[in-house]
Amino acid sequence: MDYSDLIQKLLNGNARAVARLITLVENDIVAAENIINAIYSHTGNAYILGITGSPGSGKSTFISTLTKIYAKQGKKIGIICVDPTSPLTGGALLGDRIRMKDNFSLKNVFIRSMANRGQLGGLARATEDVVKILDVYGCDIIIVETVGVGQSEVDIFKSAHSVVVLLVPGLGDDIQAIKAGIMEITDIFVVNKMDLSGADKKIADIMQMLELRMNYKYESLKDEENILLKSNWTPEIVKINSITGENFEKLTELIDKHRDFLSKSGVMADYQKNRIKSETLQILKHKITKKVEGLISSNPTIDEYLRLVMDKSLDPYSMANLIIKLLGLE
Amino acid sequence: MDYSDLIQKLLNGNARAVARLITLVENDIVAAENIINAIYSHTGNAYILGITGSPGSGKSTFISTLTKIYAKQGKKIGIICVDPTSPLTGGALLGDRIRMKDNFSLKNVFIRSMANRGQLGGLARATEDVVKILDVYGCDIIIVETVGVGQSEVDIFKSAHSVVVLLVPGLGDDIQAIKAGIMEITDIFVVNKMDLSGADKKIADIMQMLELRMNYKYESLKDEENILLKSNWTPEIVKINSITGENFEKLTELIDKHRDFLSKSGVMADYQKNRIKSETLQILKHKITKKVEGLISSNPTIDEYLRLVMDKSLDPYSMANLIIKLLGLE
Repeated sequence: MDYSDLIQKLLNGNARAVARLITLVENDIVAAENIINAIYSHTGNAYILGITGSPGSGKSTFISTLTKIYAKQGKKIGIICVDPTSPLTGGALLGDRIRMKDNFSLKNVFIRSMANRGQLGGLARATEDVVKILDVYGCDIIIVETVGVGQSEVDIFKSAHSVVVLLVPGLGDDIQAIKAGIMEITDIFVVNKMDLSGADKKIADIMQMLELRMNYKYESLKDEENILLKSNWTPEIVKINSITGENFEKLTELIDKHRDFLSKSGVMADYQKNRIKSETLQILKHKITKKVEGLISSNPTIDEYLRLVMDKSLDPYSMANLIIKLLGLE
Repeated sequence: MDYSDLIQKLLNGNARAVARLITLVENDIVAAENIINAIYSHTGNAYILGITGSPGSGKSTFISTLTKIYAKQGKKIGIICVDPTSPLTGGALLGDRIRMKDNFSLKNVFIRSMANRGQLGGLARATEDVVKILDVYGCDIIIVETVGVGQSEVDIFKSAHSVVVLLVPGLGDDIQAIKAGIMEITDIFVVNKMDLSGADKKIADIMQMLELRMNYKYESLKDEENILLKSNWTPEIVKINSITGENFEKLTELIDKHRDFLSKSGVMADYQKNRIKSETLQILKHKITKKVEGLISSNPTIDEYLRLVMDKSLDPYSMANLIIKLLGLE
């Protein structure tokens, strides 16, 4: 299929073309490949914010308020709501919630929900591609929101420049609920609902947690994941009120500070290199897995191996080695 | 390293050898490969129960009660507590909790906690290997307990013969909390704390959910995942009380019923074939990913590709294709 017409429309800032291209990259990895191939040279202008928080932390109101601030500054904003836990509903409804809540028209805001369903090659892969489409669409800020559970979010946040985690006073275990992998890549902790008692206690909890994890994270993360951590960025903490907008100025200053840090400290290039590596690895894993799955499901030699494993005259590791030999990958 | 001494002790039913072999397969995939290679022909005797439930559903009391029943029947039981969300603490403490709670000695019970930390090749891979060790150790029943979040559990449960999901009355959203992928592979739903009001309401909720999902699951799961679903097993529902032990007889009957079903309906062979396929695929993914990661991190040609992607004269998909060519995998 030829996507040049749609891509031309995308480059001209046509929101309908954005929506159609996103659906294409979500559902068809061959289309994704062709589309990204065609638009890649236009990417690289957007700043990507990863935002997460446990249920009840007020993510949608927070994102709504932040979006309005950026929109008032004349910025074009893309919002991607990723819900890996929801294959059935087709994703979160943040988009609708924001639209309903706000009277003023957010014509410079593009909102898209993504769920697990139909995500060929993984949600992280699809999210990367949607980020690129919104980037080429001309978004200055792209917000990637996830529900904050498990490894898939960590993968998704590899494409974010700044990672913001939302916590609330009182919810005693929300720090635990945010999975460890995400805590380690968080740049800014936001304590939402600062009017509630316990906001300062929560800040103290975060500080304590940061101290505790500091030693752990260096040994547990892979080298490439450590680049930002080792680059001396100390996670910032800020308390805000998403309903009144209190302290959002401070928050956006912190985001700018982190952005400056990334460029000034020279880690941006390393960061981008690692992002590309990780993205390519995702694509490679998908392609190679598909190839191997295809081989396993049809090849008569593999059927013979399977029989041997079922007879216990071969074990799965040895079978894997034989397949690697078969693939010429030794 | 030579593991033959440890393996001989394992075959003789030495619990210390079990513990040491588990540590080895957890931390060293080469050791895992050698150990599984040596013991594989002795596997295949244990019945594997996958048990999950949301936090607060009372998993540890439930498993404790079930274990006591099986122990009284003279069965040897292995319990593996898998907590993929806890890289820091080193896993759940169910083992200790069970030990503390029960006065009588469970000398035929082997308990092991596993967490993400140090799981080379993935928690699912390591869990499969630990299951095999406990199988060879002579366990009649192996209980694999997980916290019930995300895709990793679905992978872990691929090795279970019967999947049991624990729910409780009142907790309105625990059905949602159990991720969709697990609901689809559940064989027996257990409503714990049946003395609480709302137990029958919960059963009605489960039935409704099952009806809703019935159509969805056939289209969303892969063919091999559908084998059991298409084999006409209708998920059973039972309400129990883990503290008094009420209805546990009925529960164990349902487990036996499912076990009979698996063998009588002839799906066991298909099931085992798919289990081996999925396990081999896990190992293959790990091995190939390692190879590709190694290539990406050191190869000068890849560095050149990376530069091109950073210059936007190449996109990640095209880079992936070039690497596949480089690997001779086209």
